[in-house]
Amino acid sequence: MTATSLVPRPALEPDSTIGILGGGQLGRMLALAAARLGFKCHVFSPSPDSPAFDIVHRVTCADYGDTQALDRFAADVDVVTYEFENVPADTATFLAARVPVLPDPAILATTQDRLVEKNFVAGLGIRTAAFADVASPAHLQAAIERIGRPAVLKTRRFGYDGKGQVTIKNGTDPDAAWREVGGQPCILEAFVPFEREASVVAARGHDGSVECFDVTENEHRDHILKTSRVPAALSDADAAQARRIAETIAQKFGYVGVLAVEMFALRAGELLVNEIAPRVHNSGHWTLDGASVSQFEEHIRAIAGWPLAKPIRHGRVEMTNLIGREVEDYRRYLTMPGVAVHLYGKAAVRPGRKMGHVTRVFEK
Amino acid sequence: MTATSLVPRPALEPDSTIGILGGGQLGRMLALAAARLGFKCHVFSPSPDSPAFDIVHRVTCADYGDTQALDRFAADVDVVTYEFENVPADTATFLAARVPVLPDPAILATTQDRLVEKNFVAGLGIRTAAFADVASPAHLQAAIERIGRPAVLKTRRFGYDGKGQVTIKNGTDPDAAWREVGGQPCILEAFVPFEREASVVAARGHDGSVECFDVTENEHRDHILKTSRVPAALSDADAAQARRIAETIAQKFGYVGVLAVEMFALRAGELLVNEIAPRVHNSGHWTLDGASVSQFEEHIRAIAGWPLAKPIRHGRVEMTNLIGREVEDYRRYLTMPGVAVHLYGKAAVRPGRKMGHVTRVFEK
Repeated sequence: MTATSLVPRPALEPDSTIGILGGGQLGRMLALAAARLGFKCHVFSPSPDSPAFDIVHRVTCADYGDTQALDRFAADVDVVTYEFENVPADTATFLAARVPVLPDPAILATTQDRLVEKNFVAGLGIRTAAFADVASPAHLQAAIERIGRPAVLKTRRFGYDGKGQVTIKNGTDPDAAWREVGGQPCILEAFVPFEREASVVAARGHDGSVECFDVTENEHRDHILKTSRVPAALSDADAAQARRIAETIAQKFGYVGVLAVEMFALRAGELLVNEIAPRVHNSGHWTLDGASVSQFEEHIRAIAGWPLAKPIRHGRVEMTNLIGREVEDYRRYLTMPGVAVHLYGKAAVRPGRKMGHVTRVFEK
Repeated sequence: MTATSLVPRPALEPDSTIGILGGGQLGRMLALAAARLGFKCHVFSPSPDSPAFDIVHRVTCADYGDTQALDRFAADVDVVTYEFENVPADTATFLAARVPVLPDPAILATTQDRLVEKNFVAGLGIRTAAFADVASPAHLQAAIERIGRPAVLKTRRFGYDGKGQVTIKNGTDPDAAWREVGGQPCILEAFVPFEREASVVAARGHDGSVECFDVTENEHRDHILKTSRVPAALSDADAAQARRIAETIAQKFGYVGVLAVEMFALRAGELLVNEIAPRVHNSGHWTLDGASVSQFEEHIRAIAGWPLAKPIRHGRVEMTNLIGREVEDYRRYLTMPGVAVHLYGKAAVRPGRKMGHVTRVFEK
């Protein structure tokens, strides 16, 4: 899996074209960062109202299985990257045969499956919550006995923002829980009585160099990230440990680009890895206004074969997502000193949909 | 000329479309700022390789006199703005009859003509270098006698980056100088033995509020801006005076958007206005990385009828233009701590062409 990073690749020239799979706000912010560096972008997305379409000149609106469209896309770009981890394996394989795809799609096989991911992390000697493979209702019964209650049953694949998971408390009927997640292959994870949730956004370059942004503390609401604060209220030792964990994961993957590692910080000062996102991450949005370089630019630098920048934080930072109708609050934020407003250009407001975010930098 | 600003206009919704006349780096950076706020942009430019085309989905490549193209452009956008001051008057008039154009094109009549501009500034009681109207070789002779040597002969219209001007020293033949500027209507300005050049970038909103960025000190090379430093090495009193001058000009114009006022700071602590740029300005590029809000976002906020933001500077800042082949140095800057690299996506490198810039923020 590390082969990709060992092949020296010439750095892209500034007038090169970067292909981005996915047209949501992450693709949009990646393309904006690429534009600052002189790159052109071509966004590929099946959704005609993709927010990223509005800010690039070349777009392909087609299904991820449309090999003709993928072929033309591959021919037009110098490198392909993606804004989300659920890129279909066939799409990634098809493209990788034609043009460099970074980060290496082989990594997706690990991060698309919670069980494989947890085994990978545990195999690095990094702690996670106790977990068990749940392939059937019978497995679930045994897993609950081993792990205890409360525990969380999660589908192995395609879960995000709390979708595809159910908490098994005292009194929860395992069969009902199994039905609720759709009877798919699952993982059961021990419920972690964490004190705080934290994440590390890390970039790794072609040359194996790693730059970590400061550890971010995250608050979720209805399983969706609501607020990130930097720096996280961790001891220096814990913060250093969190960064080491992210760096270890990036190195073991032979990763090229930005990834995020979500962690639980326990009372005892222990860190457990919750999950890995092989992409730019919502908990790194504060870097756009709060640091000398953003996670989006670091990702573009990495996949272009350019050197990473050393991030310097401007001060204490707080990022708040505008979810659903909260986006209507943007006017209020526009007048708050030190606050930057970001709107994603999404036409339709839906409950739970990330419509924008605001960042407040408390200057040193 | 102030009528525009007195008409209350509803603020644009975030999914509105902003039309930008001109597709150079200023249009490009305006469009990137608009994208952060959720706006769509449509760029109109006669040049097929306009850098701003690459980062917007809707473009019109047509002559500024193409009324059919202008008509379609006007119908597609909610407001029109421009990246340069030499928008043909007919173009502005044609568009203004169809869609709001901001800043008010009437202001261009002042800023497109050095003589009218100087008279406007002087009429506000703001000091300029001594100047004289030069309509013929005979006028030139008289003007030289009045103003003395050295002096600078400048065409009244369409000069930028030192184009259309010649210095009249001891021994310079006035007739030769007159021929050198093409025998056009000119202005003769006394040569100012300035200690430093400074500029103020100021934004004025619909509501008459003004926000000035910190005074910037500028160094030119071959008449092209090479380096800007913030804050300028001026006394607090002089800096406050510079900001007052910019604010006065913005208010008297009934301006909506960002303008820049270039000034000479004399040894005696006196400030003379050199010229007004009715647009975002190269000496404000540092705001992208060095402040809580950029000049580009302030301009977009203003023309959208949104409130201005109060700019907070992150520290001492230095911006350096990458001109012509200097752009090849970008690799060196990529590895310098605290340095942000901006490349404009221009394919052809030409001597004197602004290809990008780098900003270094020295954190507080």
